[in-house]
Amino acid sequence: MRVEVLAVGTELLLGQIVNTNAAWLGDQLAAAGADCNFHQVTGDNHTRIVMALRDALARGEGVIVCGGLGPTHDDITREAIAEVMNVPLVRDEAVVARIRSMFEGRGRSMPEVNARQADVPRGASVIDQALGTAPGLICGVGRKVIYALPGVPYEMTEMFTRGVLPDLRRRMTERGEAGVVLSRVLRTWGLSESALAELLQARIATLDLEGANPTIAFLASGMEGIKVRITAKAVDSPSAAHLIDNEEREIRQLVGDVVFGVDGETMESVVAGLLEHRGLTLAVAESLTGGMVASRLVAVPGASRWFRGGVVAYDSAVKYELLGVPEGPVVTRDAASAMAEGARRALRADVGLALSGVAGPDEQEGRAPGTVMIALAGEPGGTGVGSGGAVELHLPGDRERVRQYATTSALDLLRRHLMGRDR
Amino acid sequence: MRVEVLAVGTELLLGQIVNTNAAWLGDQLAAAGADCNFHQVTGDNHTRIVMALRDALARGEGVIVCGGLGPTHDDITREAIAEVMNVPLVRDEAVVARIRSMFEGRGRSMPEVNARQADVPRGASVIDQALGTAPGLICGVGRKVIYALPGVPYEMTEMFTRGVLPDLRRRMTERGEAGVVLSRVLRTWGLSESALAELLQARIATLDLEGANPTIAFLASGMEGIKVRITAKAVDSPSAAHLIDNEEREIRQLVGDVVFGVDGETMESVVAGLLEHRGLTLAVAESLTGGMVASRLVAVPGASRWFRGGVVAYDSAVKYELLGVPEGPVVTRDAASAMAEGARRALRADVGLALSGVAGPDEQEGRAPGTVMIALAGEPGGTGVGSGGAVELHLPGDRERVRQYATTSALDLLRRHLMGRDR
Repeated sequence: MRVEVLAVGTELLLGQIVNTNAAWLGDQLAAAGADCNFHQVTGDNHTRIVMALRDALARGEGVIVCGGLGPTHDDITREAIAEVMNVPLVRDEAVVARIRSMFEGRGRSMPEVNARQADVPRGASVIDQALGTAPGLICGVGRKVIYALPGVPYEMTEMFTRGVLPDLRRRMTERGEAGVVLSRVLRTWGLSESALAELLQARIATLDLEGANPTIAFLASGMEGIKVRITAKAVDSPSAAHLIDNEEREIRQLVGDVVFGVDGETMESVVAGLLEHRGLTLAVAESLTGGMVASRLVAVPGASRWFRGGVVAYDSAVKYELLGVPEGPVVTRDAASAMAEGARRALRADVGLALSGVAGPDEQEGRAPGTVMIALAGEPGGTGVGSGGAVELHLPGDRERVRQYATTSALDLLRRHLMGRDR
Repeated sequence: MRVEVLAVGTELLLGQIVNTNAAWLGDQLAAAGADCNFHQVTGDNHTRIVMALRDALARGEGVIVCGGLGPTHDDITREAIAEVMNVPLVRDEAVVARIRSMFEGRGRSMPEVNARQADVPRGASVIDQALGTAPGLICGVGRKVIYALPGVPYEMTEMFTRGVLPDLRRRMTERGEAGVVLSRVLRTWGLSESALAELLQARIATLDLEGANPTIAFLASGMEGIKVRITAKAVDSPSAAHLIDNEEREIRQLVGDVVFGVDGETMESVVAGLLEHRGLTLAVAESLTGGMVASRLVAVPGASRWFRGGVVAYDSAVKYELLGVPEGPVVTRDAASAMAEGARRALRADVGLALSGVAGPDEQEGRAPGTVMIALAGEPGGTGVGSGGAVELHLPGDRERVRQYATTSALDLLRRHLMGRDR
């Protein structure tokens, strides 16, 4: 069943709020096995809401419209739906009574304008309001359907789950579409999108021959790396999960350990898990990233179990004095290694991680912006993390991007070292 | 001129990423005086991209399509535009050469698949790529226009500003839509959206009586504070700027020094300017923010002129050992003051700024999540920044939000102190 999403609200068109509702609904529809091929946004304008609803119903079998169910003059989704259904609006006194009692429950009397929220296109059924005053609507249009939900995200999600999803599932079963669509995201770091695509080219061609189930898609996500999404359709969840499991295995064989996590796992949460598993504590020393590495690590709840802290040695003198780096150039592998060892010692941690480099826009010590040294230090014989090993990177982009990529690259280096000893 | 926004990407339909590009473009189009009546999202599907482009051009005079300009098999926006224009794609060897040199600049050779990014619909002009490998496109369709931009937000915004906006302005002038709409954003920190709205209520009512020119809008922007946008229409830029200047004066009188900056000014860039103006250097000590304060300061180009560095004292022992904080509870005003003084001394800076507190989800030392102490320390008699002054805040939200709000609050405290001595 093809179901579109229409968000109504001039504030969305003007960019004053971001359309998170569409993303949430898109995710829900995919999980329910419905095909969502279009999202639309339009303003509080009768003609354009009608046009958008008609386009959606012409292209598919259903549409979820959110927003425009409030009490004020610019809330006109009810009127637009009635026009598409070619029926009048009828005030539902039971709904009026419920709105009135919601106000009275808060010790207030219902403003008369709120009675408009009880107007229902003739023939539509009501999804009782629970969290706000606006009820939802299920509006049959021939054999197709318009679902109307409030625009406030927490009202919308509750009402979708309680009132829309069961109706949608029933319709899909009647249509003989009992299947599900599942997807899983493999998160990678260290290869460009095109390099990943080349590694997976033959596999994608094979899948296309087999009817493209599962499918593979790429998503470049800045300092979060390149995501590889596997999507599978099947008659039920276990079958879809089985298809995805097999595909994940194929992909991991082809791309190797650039896959650092799955779905909601972040680079920092993976590193956190490895440190905790090994019982190691960490300290960092940062120059160009200026605290970004530490900040991402602290974002993981429970960081106090393995994170000691860090030194932001932005000025070279701080590197010499606080970290014991020998005086001289600091954009070198040796300086980064000395920083890692200095942080480890000064903060009494098992492992030290350090970055030094040139964020730009100007060069430093004759090195170009994007030149970054990353080093690890570990207690000799203790942690298994080798001391003194440092890598040199050349990262593209502006100051902010160099800093972000340096941060993820440093965490990835640590991840690889921690994993290497586990094998 | 009516210009729609079309975002292309199956990941948007599936809700794996939120369509922030549409919000940003909607804001930009409104500021440019263009009418944006529809946003659409569709997947990586040729037929549907073509349909969406045709719908947009039928309803208006232009469309901005973002996404689908990457190198892989599912990037097909170029092909769809060519079909709408009814022309073939022609490979632009100058663009290929530029992509190749971008790869070689990073010491890599260009994967052959990237050459696809140089395919241009015949008759379209290219917006040179600057930050990524995908060029943008300006595609005339009769007297209408399709602008194609990459989907990666930072590439998209840069290319819109540099390549699309001037072309759009030129077309609007040719159409006799020569009026200009200018807007200016006053950036505030320290008042809620509703508190700001109450202070400005009477002023907004007056503007409405005068025909709502300029208009005032609020935009809550998380750790960047609440933005107050003034938008004015006039026959030319100087007249619009004059209206905005007057309105800015009115608003500043009503809300006072919660306004920390204008337009692109960030809290950290304002603090940087004040430190540089006063010839002072800064060091920070952070606990719950874990480097976030330092990282935002380092984001300002030229930070080395006034930023010495910082200590991320996440573990309490690091506070005692590295910063000389007396042993005992650390979520106290005294501990924060000792941290500020410790950072100032250890990193030999003029001013020390410190944060200690509870990010959550668990409480610490019997203090609830959201409890945050911020302290400043200055060289006695030297900087004019008083020592030992510390404030206690109670911030709402989850771990990430507490850390973000604590960061901006700390920078704002420093801003106010630095400004106080200038008066």
